[in-house]
Amino acid sequence: MRTDPNCIFCKIVAGDIPAKKVHETTDALVFEDLNPAAPVHLLVIPKEHIATINDVADSDQALMGALFTAASQGARMKGIADSGYRLVANVNRDAGQEVFHIHMHLLGGQKMGWPPV
Amino acid sequence: MRTDPNCIFCKIVAGDIPAKKVHETTDALVFEDLNPAAPVHLLVIPKEHIATINDVADSDQALMGALFTAASQGARMKGIADSGYRLVANVNRDAGQEVFHIHMHLLGGQKMGWPPV
Repeated sequence: MRTDPNCIFCKIVAGDIPAKKVHETTDALVFEDLNPAAPVHLLVIPKEHIATINDVADSDQALMGALFTAASQGARMKGIADSGYRLVANVNRDAGQEVFHIHMHLLGGQKMGWPPV
Repeated sequence: MRTDPNCIFCKIVAGDIPAKKVHETTDALVFEDLNPAAPVHLLVIPKEHIATINDVADSDQALMGALFTAASQGARMKGIADSGYRLVANVNRDAGQEVFHIHMHLLGGQKMGWPPV
């Protein structure tokens, strides 16, 4: 499995840094964001280290698709699957990507505006 | 292939409604949003009809992962892969989902703020 010893999300996957885990599968981990921007704010990550969405290879497609099923399951566990939620993935500087390990923000528990920029 | 004859995105996939296509693969289609919310605003959809991310089955994971490689390729073709972009998927009412065929918004060409709610 690809991993980066300096990556904070890899450390969470390894259990070296604590996180409030909401859901876990073979491929993915869902945990609470430490700086919530909505009543529900989870992070959905692949357990493997891939820096950005630009780096996803065709061979990663099943792994990456698993993020969606992990996300919906996380939303169900927080009780917001039916009311709704927004998934947001930032890539590189213009979008404000801060941790270079792919992650999707799962935001919910409130009505959201548009545009999300 | 799952399809819904009343779905506007299925009609775009079928070629019955025109769209400015940016990139197309076996599984996915990337085209210009008609109401752009940023200098670059694309929609990334699976060709198969799946209403919401809550409806993604484990057997859909490869199909859904293909959205990420299609998105990054669309970003490359618009010249914003390196500068950055944001992917946004809305699920149900609270997030403002309007078309019930899974789609990710790809927004870029400008610096983006936070939070995206």
